[in-house]
Amino acid sequence: MSLSETSAPAAREAGARFLAEIREQPDALLRLLEREEEFARIAAAIRERGATTIRLAGHGSSDNATSYGVYAFGLLPGWTALRDSISLVVYYRAELEMSGCTVLALSQSGQTRDVVEYVHRVRERGAFTIAVTNDAESELAREADEVLALHAGPELAVAATKTYLSTLGAIGLLAAHAAGQGASFGEELRSTAELIRSVVSELEPRIPTVAVPFAFAGRMFVVGRGSEYATAREIALKLLETCRVAAEPMTATAFAHGPVAALDSLFPVWAIASEDETLPAVLEAITRAKQTGATVIASGTAAANVRDADYVLPVPAPPSPLLSPLLSVIPGQLFAWALARAKGLDPDEPRGLSKVTLAR
Amino acid sequence: MSLSETSAPAAREAGARFLAEIREQPDALLRLLEREEEFARIAAAIRERGATTIRLAGHGSSDNATSYGVYAFGLLPGWTALRDSISLVVYYRAELEMSGCTVLALSQSGQTRDVVEYVHRVRERGAFTIAVTNDAESELAREADEVLALHAGPELAVAATKTYLSTLGAIGLLAAHAAGQGASFGEELRSTAELIRSVVSELEPRIPTVAVPFAFAGRMFVVGRGSEYATAREIALKLLETCRVAAEPMTATAFAHGPVAALDSLFPVWAIASEDETLPAVLEAITRAKQTGATVIASGTAAANVRDADYVLPVPAPPSPLLSPLLSVIPGQLFAWALARAKGLDPDEPRGLSKVTLAR
Repeated sequence: MSLSETSAPAAREAGARFLAEIREQPDALLRLLEREEEFARIAAAIRERGATTIRLAGHGSSDNATSYGVYAFGLLPGWTALRDSISLVVYYRAELEMSGCTVLALSQSGQTRDVVEYVHRVRERGAFTIAVTNDAESELAREADEVLALHAGPELAVAATKTYLSTLGAIGLLAAHAAGQGASFGEELRSTAELIRSVVSELEPRIPTVAVPFAFAGRMFVVGRGSEYATAREIALKLLETCRVAAEPMTATAFAHGPVAALDSLFPVWAIASEDETLPAVLEAITRAKQTGATVIASGTAAANVRDADYVLPVPAPPSPLLSPLLSVIPGQLFAWALARAKGLDPDEPRGLSKVTLAR
Repeated sequence: MSLSETSAPAAREAGARFLAEIREQPDALLRLLEREEEFARIAAAIRERGATTIRLAGHGSSDNATSYGVYAFGLLPGWTALRDSISLVVYYRAELEMSGCTVLALSQSGQTRDVVEYVHRVRERGAFTIAVTNDAESELAREADEVLALHAGPELAVAATKTYLSTLGAIGLLAAHAAGQGASFGEELRSTAELIRSVVSELEPRIPTVAVPFAFAGRMFVVGRGSEYATAREIALKLLETCRVAAEPMTATAFAHGPVAALDSLFPVWAIASEDETLPAVLEAITRAKQTGATVIASGTAAANVRDADYVLPVPAPPSPLLSPLLSVIPGQLFAWALARAKGLDPDEPRGLSKVTLAR
């Protein structure tokens, strides 16, 4: 009997998987780029079919990624993209004409029950269907006309990180190929992956100092706008599921239309301030938040210039603003990792959640 | 000098306007029905132009109403309706083709700066534009091709109630006329108005007893699905702006994909349980919430049958399920009124908010 047979397996440190997968994100993105011809081929198929209204659907982090799709398709090929209602299609069985539509069905596992059912129904209604999933052999992949596999490698932590980022990358690449800008976007994505690597290694050691003061925060608003609204949604979800903070995402403008009234000095605000056309609205929201006495954390490519913020977690600017959301989410992921640990929670296995949600 | 000149004006009781406007809702809805021919005419114009993709945009309560539009147009004429991104159009200036689109721009005041700008731009891009507003002389009304005036009467409380309900009514009526079902929907809306009257008068005296135990609740989830997702969003916004509760709306399925992990016995859940195809998902969410020890309030047409709920605020079933959201929101409005008063807040004038948000 060897020593290794008698000793207990080494105890996994809380959050070790979650952190490992945050670190793996640049490599996962680069693997996506090894299959660029798939994106080019499918983008051409969308054009040939004239299916240029894009419907996106998913749950959880995949749903957050759909928000990015609205901007990627709207800004690159100039196509209308919408976050579709799964319940309208699956439960109410609305009789929508979808022959001019392409559906992107997003599910890390490819097993999410009602996303699979959704694809089945929209195909019947004439949509061109594409599964975007980390499991190319999954039920979702079999149900769809085409598959864009993420090749992110197994994701073991319950809270998604690398599959979220790779889904953004896949959506962006497909939109860029649809716009005839696939090659340049691919290059930009490649350099963004390297920027992500530097952000993770720079931020990881110092993030606990930023996170620990929030150990008893019970609620938070996460404000973003435009393409960074997806980031706001994803950071809020990480805080909810790994740190048990009631974190609500909202656009900078929605914030000013009511929620600002709920703030006080015990109700912090996370704002994603990135350099693009929506930045003035986000800066306005930060000013209003500070007027209530709220503590403000700013992340994003313009965070370093936010004078009013109490904490800044800036990220470098990517080659084009549409890639900012891939960088801006990183401080949120690392903050969630550090805060969960500070609270004695295990971000790998949040109480009450399982990796594959067979939700309807 | 007469007595009336020397005495101070009678002090307004906190929440008096908010409550008065909740009570006025049935009459406001009935006024909408006096102008049914306008809805018929505009629905015909949409058909003639072939502009059957519906884009809806607004902020605050108007944005919440856009969620209802997705279901009203999806289920009645079978048209794709989407909540449009104002930032995509106004700030990023995306070059979207909109000649097959009708835009419904929603703003109570008709003054919301970026909604006005949005209409200006989508018209340039070929959309048929309709302002849905309580002020038919507003800038928004002048900017749009057509106006559907709400005729809800002046809304004085900062937190919207009757204009939200009348906006739902206007969206439903337009969708019904588009489907050739205007007359029957109009009749159903008329009887729904009377049901609302009975709900308000029955619930108003007993709602403080339900609301008071939540005086120290700092956060809440509000769960709805399908057409009741709009209701979840609107109830959450009322709680945020009038009661300073961090209330986050979410679909029943999103709830199961992460947020459920944040719950405990001090984190209550409001669930809208109405009799339609999405009810099983909402009931599943309620069961999961109860497993965490959370207190559950159930409203909606099926609330009376929710065994697991701690408080039930049922409403009667309207003639068709698509009208349920007009009833289900009433308990939330009254609860917000009562809870704000229990907390010593004035729901008529929440701190830090103004009636017309010139937000961008």
